[in-house]
Amino acid sequence: MKHNFGAGPGILPQEVFKQAAAAVLDFNGTGLSLLEISHRSPEFEEVLNEAVALVKELFSVPEGYSVLFLQGGASTQFAMAPNNLLPEGGKAAYLDSGVWASKALKEAKFFGNVEVVASSKESNYTYIPKDYTIPADAAYFHITSNNTIYGTQLQQFPKSPVPLVCDMSSDIFSREVNVADFGLIYAGAQKNMGPAGVTLVIVKDDILGKSGRKIPAMYNYEVQIEGGSMYNTPPCFAIYVSMLTLKWLKSKGGVQAIEKDNNEKARVLYEEIDRNPLFKAVAATEDRSRMNVCFVMENAELEKPFLKYCDEKGIVGLKGHRSVGGFRASIYNALPITSVYVLIDAMREFAEKNK
Amino acid sequence: MKHNFGAGPGILPQEVFKQAAAAVLDFNGTGLSLLEISHRSPEFEEVLNEAVALVKELFSVPEGYSVLFLQGGASTQFAMAPNNLLPEGGKAAYLDSGVWASKALKEAKFFGNVEVVASSKESNYTYIPKDYTIPADAAYFHITSNNTIYGTQLQQFPKSPVPLVCDMSSDIFSREVNVADFGLIYAGAQKNMGPAGVTLVIVKDDILGKSGRKIPAMYNYEVQIEGGSMYNTPPCFAIYVSMLTLKWLKSKGGVQAIEKDNNEKARVLYEEIDRNPLFKAVAATEDRSRMNVCFVMENAELEKPFLKYCDEKGIVGLKGHRSVGGFRASIYNALPITSVYVLIDAMREFAEKNK
Repeated sequence: MKHNFGAGPGILPQEVFKQAAAAVLDFNGTGLSLLEISHRSPEFEEVLNEAVALVKELFSVPEGYSVLFLQGGASTQFAMAPNNLLPEGGKAAYLDSGVWASKALKEAKFFGNVEVVASSKESNYTYIPKDYTIPADAAYFHITSNNTIYGTQLQQFPKSPVPLVCDMSSDIFSREVNVADFGLIYAGAQKNMGPAGVTLVIVKDDILGKSGRKIPAMYNYEVQIEGGSMYNTPPCFAIYVSMLTLKWLKSKGGVQAIEKDNNEKARVLYEEIDRNPLFKAVAATEDRSRMNVCFVMENAELEKPFLKYCDEKGIVGLKGHRSVGGFRASIYNALPITSVYVLIDAMREFAEKNK
Repeated sequence: MKHNFGAGPGILPQEVFKQAAAAVLDFNGTGLSLLEISHRSPEFEEVLNEAVALVKELFSVPEGYSVLFLQGGASTQFAMAPNNLLPEGGKAAYLDSGVWASKALKEAKFFGNVEVVASSKESNYTYIPKDYTIPADAAYFHITSNNTIYGTQLQQFPKSPVPLVCDMSSDIFSREVNVADFGLIYAGAQKNMGPAGVTLVIVKDDILGKSGRKIPAMYNYEVQIEGGSMYNTPPCFAIYVSMLTLKWLKSKGGVQAIEKDNNEKARVLYEEIDRNPLFKAVAATEDRSRMNVCFVMENAELEKPFLKYCDEKGIVGLKGHRSVGGFRASIYNALPITSVYVLIDAMREFAEKNK
């Protein structure tokens, strides 16, 4: 039994793996593999429709928004969002809360001007910048809801005078969100929602078509909406696994219920980090992520031995990102709290041995 | 037992389905699903490296070319190719041999001028245009090697004074190709090479970086080469299944051997179509595709009953594209010749009953 704390592609529910494996052999009794059926078949169209319906239901997506399953990951959205929303010569505002935010704003510069309203780069992104003004003349304001590498998370979303664009790759469906507050939400699936290879986009229809740009078909949200995520062949398997994962989430009681579980997992783990004299948390207390818990050791020489100790207990994926060091325990939706307890026990035992 | 003649996502080897399903449950004895392991893990890096090595080996890719596994399908390449290769104000030449070729050239117009050297549109693309001159001042010449919808295929590739760019989505690895004759080859995987959700790109390094364009990271071949197809999280599962399929192809004797099999499958099927009074082939004889065999009935009223007759025998995916009608038997690499014989038997029996 492994306890997978990897940052992504990350853990998904065991029952999803079982259903996905079965569908690769025989999809819903068709006698065909899921991998060899047409995306235009009624069987696959039902999968896509169900995935879209589950997103709408689980996230209470209001009227006037479209839900898309695209390819290319959040990194493609870094360019696609400004390509669609930023007029020639226009300006977009960005909050620089980490490397991914900084990559996003770099891509926006290919399409127009960028105003960085605030940055925590000077402190290696250990906190979320808070005192800033969103320029009312910006085409949109871009934020990153959770910063996987540094273990920080926006606890509240800012009120914005312009459409709010949010990269939710690493905490989507982990907590309740009022979609109506956003113009555009996007997320690579491979943390909370599905496997690598598909990207969720939730976009408010009336913010589109205003930039005056000519946009190639695959980069154009309006074309993708018109095609119902099937302008071309979609990543069928990744959409199917996402649908299964969303279905599992619904069976667990939905986002509200999983948020409660996630809060409890984060609470017990941070409590141990704060209590245990060997460890200390990396992120500013008020910005601590409930998805990626980053921590280091007071004595850095013990870090390798602790990783080894964990490995022997089946705890995997705990190594921190190279730019932060130490450990990162990703506690995504599908990670059971029992795995968190195993980690906490390991921390306690290791502290006992290294008194 | 189903006989899957679907045009794509299409049939893959049965043993690939079995291996893929097993990896979704437990990847190579890691105790983790393939879907939950990091793309930066040694285990996945080995998968990607093996996939690249197999492409190079099976296609005898010469030095000076890069092999990429990207997202977004051929439709994304329709824009990515001109974005990288077509200078501002420059010109690209296109051969219009079908709807996909025509979509490709439409995307190129976002980036520069397009010269269509020849088109068979007026005959609903039933043949490959042949008498044309490739302008020596074009940035590149774009062709589509096989036209899935119409069942036509370039039997020889043109000699080009400028880099040859080829969409090989529907016949890649089905026949031997001299990669050195091409500047850029791209192919959505979901016909001969793997599942939907990954796109193969083989690009000659020295044609890149010359357009003077500023290109967003995800659309930039040079960035993708630099990142080794991992500038961001790649579509891990789709790459894995492609790797398995390429390995299967190698075990079958490689491209030369499969080409022989494919020729035989096409030969017996066209022979029956030409012989059987109920049916007639759609494409010009000299341009007949060895991947997608398109045919109609002399008496169109018998088409629905024939489809039903086939369905009862487990023959699926035979319905022709709506723009051509009739039938399309896709006989991709993984389709065994025994399935072709089953189809031929059905055609004979049906003719017997409808004399």
